[in-house]
Amino acid sequence: MKNRPIWIRHASQMVTLAGSSAAPLAGKRMSELGLLENGSLWLEDGLIQMVGTTDEVAAVYQERLGEAEVIDAAGKLVTPGLVDPHTHLVYAGSREHEFAMRLNGATYMEIMNSGGGIHATTRATREASHETLFKESLQRLDQFLLHGVTTVEAKSGYGLTLEAELKQLEVAKALHEHHPVDLISTFMGAHAVPPEYRECPDAFVDYCVDVMIPEVAKRRLAEFNDVFCERGVFTPAQSRRILQAGIKHGLLPKIHADEIEPYEGAELAAEVGAVSADHLLRASDTGIVKMAEAGVIAVLLPGTAFFLMAASADGRKMIDAGVPVALSTDCNPGSSPTVAMPLIMNLGCLKMGMTPAEVLAAATINAAHAIKRGHEIGSLEAGKKADITLFNVPNYMALQYRYGVNHVHTVIKAGVKVVEGGVRL
Amino acid sequence: MKNRPIWIRHASQMVTLAGSSAAPLAGKRMSELGLLENGSLWLEDGLIQMVGTTDEVAAVYQERLGEAEVIDAAGKLVTPGLVDPHTHLVYAGSREHEFAMRLNGATYMEIMNSGGGIHATTRATREASHETLFKESLQRLDQFLLHGVTTVEAKSGYGLTLEAELKQLEVAKALHEHHPVDLISTFMGAHAVPPEYRECPDAFVDYCVDVMIPEVAKRRLAEFNDVFCERGVFTPAQSRRILQAGIKHGLLPKIHADEIEPYEGAELAAEVGAVSADHLLRASDTGIVKMAEAGVIAVLLPGTAFFLMAASADGRKMIDAGVPVALSTDCNPGSSPTVAMPLIMNLGCLKMGMTPAEVLAAATINAAHAIKRGHEIGSLEAGKKADITLFNVPNYMALQYRYGVNHVHTVIKAGVKVVEGGVRL
Ligand SMILES: [Zn+2]
Ligand SMILES: [Zn+2]
Repeated sequence: MKNRPIWIRHASQMVTLAGSSAAPLAGKRMSELGLLENGSLWLEDGLIQMVGTTDEVAAVYQERLGEAEVIDAAGKLVTPGLVDPHTHLVYAGSREHEFAMRLNGATYMEIMNSGGGIHATTRATREASHETLFKESLQRLDQFLLHGVTTVEAKSGYGLTLEAELKQLEVAKALHEHHPVDLISTFMGAHAVPPEYRECPDAFVDYCVDVMIPEVAKRRLAEFNDVFCERGVFTPAQSRRILQAGIKHGLLPKIHADEIEPYEGAELAAEVGAVSADHLLRASDTGIVKMAEAGVIAVLLPGTAFFLMAASADGRKMIDAGVPVALSTDCNPGSSPTVAMPLIMNLGCLKMGMTPAEVLAAATINAAHAIKRGHEIGSLEAGKKADITLFNVPNYMALQYRYGVNHVHTVIKAGVKVVEGGVRL
Repeated sequence: MKNRPIWIRHASQMVTLAGSSAAPLAGKRMSELGLLENGSLWLEDGLIQMVGTTDEVAAVYQERLGEAEVIDAAGKLVTPGLVDPHTHLVYAGSREHEFAMRLNGATYMEIMNSGGGIHATTRATREASHETLFKESLQRLDQFLLHGVTTVEAKSGYGLTLEAELKQLEVAKALHEHHPVDLISTFMGAHAVPPEYRECPDAFVDYCVDVMIPEVAKRRLAEFNDVFCERGVFTPAQSRRILQAGIKHGLLPKIHADEIEPYEGAELAAEVGAVSADHLLRASDTGIVKMAEAGVIAVLLPGTAFFLMAASADGRKMIDAGVPVALSTDCNPGSSPTVAMPLIMNLGCLKMGMTPAEVLAAATINAAHAIKRGHEIGSLEAGKKADITLFNVPNYMALQYRYGVNHVHTVIKAGVKVVEGGVRL
């Protein structure tokens, strides 16, 4: 059955980000939102057919206006559907007890010794059935949608055996097929050294390189390959091996870099031509320059710093240095158990010195480029997928000013209305 | 018409805070949430009639179960309706442009010189009609309700003339009568020295003391009297005069204290027996001890520090010193344009070292005591007003752990369901 066209009209303000499909926005261009007043969109066949003022769109479609489902966007801000380019969406279990222990003064070691930390999630995820993983992750996906997000990247990495990693990636694939939100998969077998390899981490790197990466690539279960490059996890040398193995098998490199201490993760990202380097709280100035030169996107995760009560990455400095910046929730059960992209944008302003214009570019078109979808989503241009979010605020500045509130009113995914009045349809 | 009784049953967890009506919770008692598993409530005639497990309530009301509207709270957390004890709810206009200017590097003086700051809101509020003020504030009240808040304090202080202050207070009264959320009014003529008194601030204090306070009290338009005690605004001596004039006319004292620098505001609060001292980012250790001794409630506003990119008040230290702590949004158009009490609790944990239990006590029963309503609202006990919030999380720890999301599912105000499925009924 063919869906009726949708005609969005009278938007108080529309953020088109026109002209950004070919490459991520960097420097001053991150402030060029391509604003339209009294904006309008014609959506049909899952795509944006026309972008313009209400009068312009009405003139072109005048003979077909009666066919369309009309969405009146008076008083509202219309933007591209938000994109979250870094999540650990597929996992089992919940760790609020650890959080409460931490706030009651428990140390990291006490939490680990009580069975907490990443290994708790790995245990739960290994034990969970496909159905359980699917069901628990589906609830998070619905929440993403209610927060205006229409595409998420999802990493494996709570399995750490071929079988369990494949299970996570299969669940992500099933969610992508079943749920309106699009999932883009990243293999991250190198998320942690599992307990059974504690004495010989290089053997686990061999297992990633020789067994898991080839099999994941063969089954076409991921587009990207990620590694947690951090002292005590994987060294830059191990990370390089892992990323190069991915490249050899057609998986594009991403990297968790320089989160806890400067560890040349940003430099490695530039060297291997990573699509993105993520976290970067302690990235060196040299690393930032190299990222700018190599066009590596910085995916910044201010929610993680917020939740861990740490200082944020210096988004302002990175933008000023010419690095294209994207934003993400880092959705995961340990360091950032949230789906709240609207708050992540607030944190971009309040914790990283970004402007209201920059955080919106970072959560749409630059996030799309960080998962190699800049040609398809992330801006409002004819021919792109009809992924649209309407917010109950009159302009993009108010979206950050009225902080802490989810202002999402309507979400359209691939031309179909999936959220209205803040409610999942 | 009499409303049907409501029977809430099978709550995963219910936070009763039983036994807290007589006095605010302090010290370790702030962690005593009075938890019930499989909790149940019988609501009738606007009041809580019974609190217990589902079986206990079913046994007592077994012959009337069929009459009741049933709310199934399986998987949900049930708490007292949240209380916001410090807002500047009634104002006109919006200042998102100033926020964007600030993030783009403008100084405070540049913003003031461009017509911004508190005087912009005072101008807009003075010019606004009763109807405009009512309409704009009503939208914020609806948003409060959607965030689980059933009672808010509301201050005047954007008029700064008798006529304009009365207008603000009349709007608050009309909102209280018209809207499900209860408003408790505070007169705050001493919010700023208006431009016309810049050369003789003491004359403005005289005007507050001799003209405005007596008239507001005579018209019974407020219960509390507040002052902004801060260098460059009102001195401790001026603040003392203003608070004592209020006491003389039956208005209970509150104080904006020690926000920017230590200014003996906490000490003054203890001296005059203030119900609460608010902000307290720079309160002295002596002041904190005196507040504990005098039983002054600390109303902490971590959203304001967050939005102003400043360090928060030290909630942990105050609780450990025996000061009862309450939390609030500080909802206002300059330093905290939000209604998001759920985020305020998150900030209590992440920015002030409070625990998930303490922030919930601070946002319910202690907030109720901070507006002298501890006997009526803020805990789930038979005889109290049936103000209830249901959250889509299984326990109180998850409410803070899954940060940045408004988990409110259902809100009941005075025994009437006003929000369901996150939607205003
Ligand atoms: Zn991550
Ligand atoms: Zn205030």
